[in-house]
Amino acid sequence: MNIQNINVSSYPNSRKIYVDGKLHPVRVAMREIHQYPTVTIENGKRVESPNPPVTVYDTSGPFTDPEIEIDINRGLPRLREEWIEQRDDTVVLDDITSEYGKARRDDPSLDGIRFPVSHRPRKAKDGACVTQMHYAKQGIITPEMEYVAIRENLDNDKRGIKSHITPELVRDEIAAGRAIIAANINHPEAEPMIIGKAFSVKLNTNIGNSALSSGIGEEVSKAVWSCYWGGDTLMDLSTGNNIHETREWIIRNCPVPVGTVPIYQALEKVNGDVKKLTWEIYRDTLIEQCEQGVDYFTIHAGVLREHARLVEQRLTGCVSRGGSIMVQWCVEHNQESFLYTHFEEICEILNKYDVAVSLGDGMRPGSTHDANDRAQFLELEVLGRLTEIAWRHDVQVLIEGPGHVPMHKIRENMEKQASACHEAPFYTLGPLTTDIAPGYDHITSAIGAAIISNLGTAMICYVTPKEHLSLPDLNDVREGVIAYKIAAHAADLAKGFPGANVRDDALSKARYEFRWKDQFNLSLDPEKAKRYYLESRREAPDADDRFCTMCGPNFCAMRISQNIAESCKEQ
Amino acid sequence: MNIQNINVSSYPNSRKIYVDGKLHPVRVAMREIHQYPTVTIENGKRVESPNPPVTVYDTSGPFTDPEIEIDINRGLPRLREEWIEQRDDTVVLDDITSEYGKARRDDPSLDGIRFPVSHRPRKAKDGACVTQMHYAKQGIITPEMEYVAIRENLDNDKRGIKSHITPELVRDEIAAGRAIIAANINHPEAEPMIIGKAFSVKLNTNIGNSALSSGIGEEVSKAVWSCYWGGDTLMDLSTGNNIHETREWIIRNCPVPVGTVPIYQALEKVNGDVKKLTWEIYRDTLIEQCEQGVDYFTIHAGVLREHARLVEQRLTGCVSRGGSIMVQWCVEHNQESFLYTHFEEICEILNKYDVAVSLGDGMRPGSTHDANDRAQFLELEVLGRLTEIAWRHDVQVLIEGPGHVPMHKIRENMEKQASACHEAPFYTLGPLTTDIAPGYDHITSAIGAAIISNLGTAMICYVTPKEHLSLPDLNDVREGVIAYKIAAHAADLAKGFPGANVRDDALSKARYEFRWKDQFNLSLDPEKAKRYYLESRREAPDADDRFCTMCGPNFCAMRISQNIAESCKEQ
Repeated sequence: MNIQNINVSSYPNSRKIYVDGKLHPVRVAMREIHQYPTVTIENGKRVESPNPPVTVYDTSGPFTDPEIEIDINRGLPRLREEWIEQRDDTVVLDDITSEYGKARRDDPSLDGIRFPVSHRPRKAKDGACVTQMHYAKQGIITPEMEYVAIRENLDNDKRGIKSHITPELVRDEIAAGRAIIAANINHPEAEPMIIGKAFSVKLNTNIGNSALSSGIGEEVSKAVWSCYWGGDTLMDLSTGNNIHETREWIIRNCPVPVGTVPIYQALEKVNGDVKKLTWEIYRDTLIEQCEQGVDYFTIHAGVLREHARLVEQRLTGCVSRGGSIMVQWCVEHNQESFLYTHFEEICEILNKYDVAVSLGDGMRPGSTHDANDRAQFLELEVLGRLTEIAWRHDVQVLIEGPGHVPMHKIRENMEKQASACHEAPFYTLGPLTTDIAPGYDHITSAIGAAIISNLGTAMICYVTPKEHLSLPDLNDVREGVIAYKIAAHAADLAKGFPGANVRDDALSKARYEFRWKDQFNLSLDPEKAKRYYLESRREAPDADDRFCTMCGPNFCAMRISQNIAESCKEQ
Repeated sequence: MNIQNINVSSYPNSRKIYVDGKLHPVRVAMREIHQYPTVTIENGKRVESPNPPVTVYDTSGPFTDPEIEIDINRGLPRLREEWIEQRDDTVVLDDITSEYGKARRDDPSLDGIRFPVSHRPRKAKDGACVTQMHYAKQGIITPEMEYVAIRENLDNDKRGIKSHITPELVRDEIAAGRAIIAANINHPEAEPMIIGKAFSVKLNTNIGNSALSSGIGEEVSKAVWSCYWGGDTLMDLSTGNNIHETREWIIRNCPVPVGTVPIYQALEKVNGDVKKLTWEIYRDTLIEQCEQGVDYFTIHAGVLREHARLVEQRLTGCVSRGGSIMVQWCVEHNQESFLYTHFEEICEILNKYDVAVSLGDGMRPGSTHDANDRAQFLELEVLGRLTEIAWRHDVQVLIEGPGHVPMHKIRENMEKQASACHEAPFYTLGPLTTDIAPGYDHITSAIGAAIISNLGTAMICYVTPKEHLSLPDLNDVREGVIAYKIAAHAADLAKGFPGANVRDDALSKARYEFRWKDQFNLSLDPEKAKRYYLESRREAPDADDRFCTMCGPNFCAMRISQNIAESCKEQ
């Protein structure tokens, strides 16, 4: 299998750097963007003043490290394996546990699409709990915690920027449930990252085929592609064929945490017949995925039987796939949701692998009309109670949020979530601030995402231009990720996150000094910025003019400003 | 000359409607989008329930009215001519006043590019003042005022939606300076529209060639195109050759108010040599453009000599073209800006034609680093004083705003503007909420534009994906306009503007009922929404499936919701 149609080899004028830990032998990957010097003419002589490199958060993993040989048929290096082994609280199982997983493994018709290397799964020793929350509560700073503390700070130290982020803070936030490190012991390929309001805002990308489209190769390409552009976590929402095998390929090649919605696969196992879903099938699916290495599960355990009649009162009903499945199950069986009644048991499974639970918002509004209604906030209260249960089992928790919310109702979402769910990190889909722009919902939702992140949301789930219309292709993934990088970064700036302004200031300085190449290289999408610049230039192999086509040479305000500064100096 | 490469004939399933005035014989153009019925099966029978048409604000002018024959070589119908004549406070001049205008007219080398029809200019009678503010202050409700009151309300009456917007409110807001109708008596082709915080948020688009690109035909196409997609006003920022002729073509074919920055043309007249600019050249340019029909002028009269040294202290200096030109002029002449010293005289010219002044923010921040600094707020104070002067002459005023501003500094901009400038309508460029995304600045700025509009900004100036890099092409104009329609509409929803939610709710209902065609037709960009939907479908000539490719048939939450609703009803 090959990665097709994507080029993720490197960013221009950038190099991969590694910062060493002090407490643990961790090496934290970052990207350093080099800049050209500022050139001035002083007393007729050309003077060069250097501009320091800018270090940026890097989610692309080993794919952009020329020192590491990439073979997606072998998977990525297993970065965390040693750390996990050294904790000595896990065992390597002789075989996988899931019946379904065994059946897939033993089915010769799947030989052609199966990931070539098999790893025996790891699990907590009997009686042990292996979650980062568990360690944090005991006061332990794990290598993962030190890793993310260094990662959040980038080169703040070197620049003399004061930062509140220390390994101790990371530990304390995780212990309090205000942050999580989603890091399944069976996904040692992932680089640790942290989700919590004290840290930089993160963004999730969704990929996955539906019954109607897309194959394994394409999904792996999308996964690598979304990490390249800046996706911090990745949800595989596949609902078509070969979910099991697709997921294995993705996890083994994914440098960021992977999330899933296990009910999707459970439903495939009963051929889409909601009524036939059982706790046993769901439980086997959880274990199957825990042992593959999924880092967090979206579980719609807050959707209860009583919500059915609230769905009816809405303009757009229930727009969460998992939520609607569970409501239908409750109605058809006239029983309470098995996700709710078995939630303690779920937690007991998850804490054996350190899989975080992302409590799904089955009742998220699917239109601005339904925002902040009773169905939505009633479910949020349930999620708060489930959070308490998960935390009792030291299971790390995210809370999922809307959806479609007009701007004036966004703050209430954040405040109610923080209070009902005891400040567990909020993870929202957008929200979309209007319903009237299909084809542009990466924009309608980037507005809402920026606002809610500034108010304290820890992670935002991207929306692509194809939302509501179709599955995203590679270009849509890129557009969606960049729109959400913008929203997340705008929020980091507004929150005064330490060092967040370094890249903005460097790019603006480059812009003012007509260092066009630096302006492109420092941007979120250097290829596009450069292409747009060059497209409209008649002859410009080298992008170093002291103006651009927007204003032409006579009307460049920045050039005039420099003249003014010079005039002032002379006078 | 032809309009090239654009199709603006009509929107799908829409028709142009006209709503009659009660006070005046005005006919207000709107667009009515027709919907398909909702189809349900009841007791085995197909039942159709009609969905009412949705009326939307229409900026496309006669171009989308099949009853009106368009010939861009003749220009649009002169809608307001009779209203202006009937006021009997103007005269038609025998000849144009501007020396430069006469020279252009008499230059045979320009025959090939000159607009074919010439209209003699109109001007206020001696001693008369013909501004909408002047009439409003006298308690008069003009046809223009009634027109915009009807236009803002759309079909609120028919739907029983209570609205505070009446012709009286329009008059009072204009009299108080809190709103403007930019409507030069020499641009009778434009449909009246209102800019003010009591009304729906408006968006301006910029077009114009620079020395490096673009011809007249292309600029006219862009103008019509931007109106088609939803631009409420249009600024012609041309700086290259043939500014005068290009502008004439645009104004004669533009159904929305046209703005310019006269200093650009004045500078062309002195071959780009700032030092050679004089009040006399500028004054002649103002009159030239007043008589062509420009509806509002950006005038950077708040940039003073003392600002020069503040520019030096910034990361990105002065990024306003007009602002930087004036600072340079002040420094080179060591004199106060002639725009400031002659401001009363400017107002005396403008109120003879009813040209509004848009007080330019020469000191707007060009980077998030420079946001809300001393240079910016010092200028704002000056703009407040100039506002008082303009109002004394009954000249309508807009105040231009930033720029690059991180989210946490946006509110201060709005509050300081409202207080310093006595609630004159605020008109901002974005603001861009981060500097790191060239190629995506329609998104970085749509975030800021939505936020500041919600706080009370009356008009937002669009930013295209090419900002900072190049001049926009037709596709960039479309992307920029839609991004800003989203920002403006999101703010209207958040402000609770009467009837703003009608289109959202209709589209969401269509979405829930799988009325795909209605979903496309009700959207801001029906063509793109439909294209995205169809692109990924294997076989779907008719878009009426009860699911989409995002989730496939088994996982469609909306379909499941409907099943649930049916199940609940049965139980």
